[in-house]
Amino acid sequence: MIDTNLLINDLNLIREKSPLVHNITNYVVMNNTANGLLSLGASPVMAHAPEEVEDMVSIASALVINMGTLSKHWVEAMLKAGKKAKKIGIPVIFDPVGAGATAYRSETASIIIKECKPDIIRGNASEIMSLAKSNIATKGVDSTANSESALEMGKDLALKIDAVISISGQEDFITDGKIVNTVKFGSPMMTKVTGLGCTASAITGAFAAVNKNLLTAATHAMAIMGIAGELAAKKAEGPGSLQLHFLDILFNINKYV
Amino acid sequence: MIDTNLLINDLNLIREKSPLVHNITNYVVMNNTANGLLSLGASPVMAHAPEEVEDMVSIASALVINMGTLSKHWVEAMLKAGKKAKKIGIPVIFDPVGAGATAYRSETASIIIKECKPDIIRGNASEIMSLAKSNIATKGVDSTANSESALEMGKDLALKIDAVISISGQEDFITDGKIVNTVKFGSPMMTKVTGLGCTASAITGAFAAVNKNLLTAATHAMAIMGIAGELAAKKAEGPGSLQLHFLDILFNINKYV
Amino acid sequence: MIDTNLLINDLNLIREKSPLVHNITNYVVMNNTANGLLSLGASPVMAHAPEEVEDMVSIASALVINMGTLSKHWVEAMLKAGKKAKKIGIPVIFDPVGAGATAYRSETASIIIKECKPDIIRGNASEIMSLAKSNIATKGVDSTANSESALEMGKDLALKIDAVISISGQEDFITDGKIVNTVKFGSPMMTKVTGLGCTASAITGAFAAVNKNLLTAATHAMAIMGIAGELAAKKAEGPGSLQLHFLDILFNINKYV
Repeated sequence: MIDTNLLINDLNLIREKSPLVHNITNYVVMNNTANGLLSLGASPVMAHAPEEVEDMVSIASALVINMGTLSKHWVEAMLKAGKKAKKIGIPVIFDPVGAGATAYRSETASIIIKECKPDIIRGNASEIMSLAKSNIATKGVDSTANSESALEMGKDLALKIDAVISISGQEDFITDGKIVNTVKFGSPMMTKVTGLGCTASAITGAFAAVNKNLLTAATHAMAIMGIAGELAAKKAEGPGSLQLHFLDILFNINKYV
Repeated sequence: MIDTNLLINDLNLIREKSPLVHNITNYVVMNNTANGLLSLGASPVMAHAPEEVEDMVSIASALVINMGTLSKHWVEAMLKAGKKAKKIGIPVIFDPVGAGATAYRSETASIIIKECKPDIIRGNASEIMSLAKSNIATKGVDSTANSESALEMGKDLALKIDAVISISGQEDFITDGKIVNTVKFGSPMMTKVTGLGCTASAITGAFAAVNKNLLTAATHAMAIMGIAGELAAKKAEGPGSLQLHFLDILFNINKYV
Repeated sequence: MIDTNLLINDLNLIREKSPLVHNITNYVVMNNTANGLLSLGASPVMAHAPEEVEDMVSIASALVINMGTLSKHWVEAMLKAGKKAKKIGIPVIFDPVGAGATAYRSETASIIIKECKPDIIRGNASEIMSLAKSNIATKGVDSTANSESALEMGKDLALKIDAVISISGQEDFITDGKIVNTVKFGSPMMTKVTGLGCTASAITGAFAAVNKNLLTAATHAMAIMGIAGELAAKKAEGPGSLQLHFLDILFNINKYV
């Protein structure tokens, strides 16, 4: 389902344009996220002060909102930045980390979706299912979060809120509600490194910055994450060396696709 | 003093149950701490918003409070989370980073001890001595922070506040005031990597989540830290590679114990 | 221009005294910055609560203020800490991350310069040019940020505010307005690792803590950054392994200078 020429074209554009990706993200992964974007060839910036997020969004090519370690002032900045991004027409990527785990996270996710109208939402199966349940009338869905039941809910959510939904898992599903792309790369060891999901969201921002077809952009991002992660895991003795190889491989990704 | 079978039993339980360890910790080490827990087999979550910490504690199996980069709103969240954890009966681990370095830290540590009644406190010699001086009548103790004088004060503190005190150093001492366990693993190079002490506290949380004997749990945590750190240091050319090997070895720890 | 004996002397002093460097820095780089200082032999501390920054400054040998992820409460702490540092006479290093990118950053940088009177400012060409334009009458300068035009503005800025200006780039220029030192080490791959500029500022703090000649101290810091970065890049397959080798080489730097 992935056209390698189109993928390489996007990669080349990222390296050529080095798009500025504005991240309002969580404390745990800021460093990894920035390094992932740099290794890929994009330009990361992290800024969260309400006083400046609109100015920063104005010079960025994509906005990534990640609620991993949310709190009141950060949510304020996320909303401000998200609205500005929509106003000037740059893509907004939302990572609803932990949606469903606490009421505060579920409510915040709903507010962000309502007020910022993200173009792409990337999460794991249970996060996407939690969003779907909060944001569309549920059909009494099974709560066990396997990606296939999440996919059905993700498709409904995509249509309802007019966004691309990117569901990561053993297989990744990326859908706009009508088309479903599947990505089968990756390694279980990736789940033992914190923040690779958040890195996937950030990298989705880089692809969305250079490819107006957001379904394709989101799919390419997951493909690159999966390819780099799978190759890194093969070389790695554990999660420590996986991280190192992951960045090295992203940096040299043209050798591998 | 360490029964290898009991240690392996705890390790197996961590991998089997993957207990959720809720960390309210400092910005410097969040990433390492999360990765340490993942490599060990536990499930980390970082959340600090007063709006959600009680909900997060409710689904966690241990709470780790670390005051490395404290500030007002975070302390508020720590107290809220700590009280909730005691109420529902999950173990509370407290890392009093920098206690004694500033009045604000010493006071905050005393408040946390008073209001959250931590089950285990893990710190270095000078932090433990500082807590002991603030929280029990002192006996005119020497202020030089070697672990042996800290041990005497730690034992008094343990009895006074009914907690396990885990004092890390060249030798680690873990005591409930009556019994003292000693751990002699480790490497001086570990002091050149930021946050390995904080990782020790987080890992103590994982062991406390699966072993109700908290003196044993805290001892096992320090043993695993020491074994992994010592092996990692032997393979390392410096603190950069030590970090990588440390996580890889934690991930493969069953090969080494 | 660099006297190797003087450089080694500073390195030895850092390892011998292990000066406490107080960092009020950004979330993205805290971990790297702390690890860079530890590998070099200095002692890092991160603290930003207004309640304690003055106490922490009082026991530190240098203060590093970095505005990478600034916000209101942090700026308050930076100003408090900076004034205290000047009062007790320890060197203040300022890293104006992103000055010029948003109005809030430019204004905050001006306030910090005015109120804290930093002894050394380390930034890239466009940051230094932005500061110069805001803080001295401009001469209708070219806005393209190459280091040579930045150097002329940096010299003016140095004289105007009586500070050492350290401009990093392919070549680093360190100037007090009269003398200009040039450092030509480094590797382009260093720009693909987040926060090496911030690490340079932190390490400048360590050198300033042991060498009262701040022009020399700042020059030595950039030399060590460049030497370690260049050697690390030669061994690295990408930005992931560069980071690891960088810390290992810093730790063993005496072998290389």
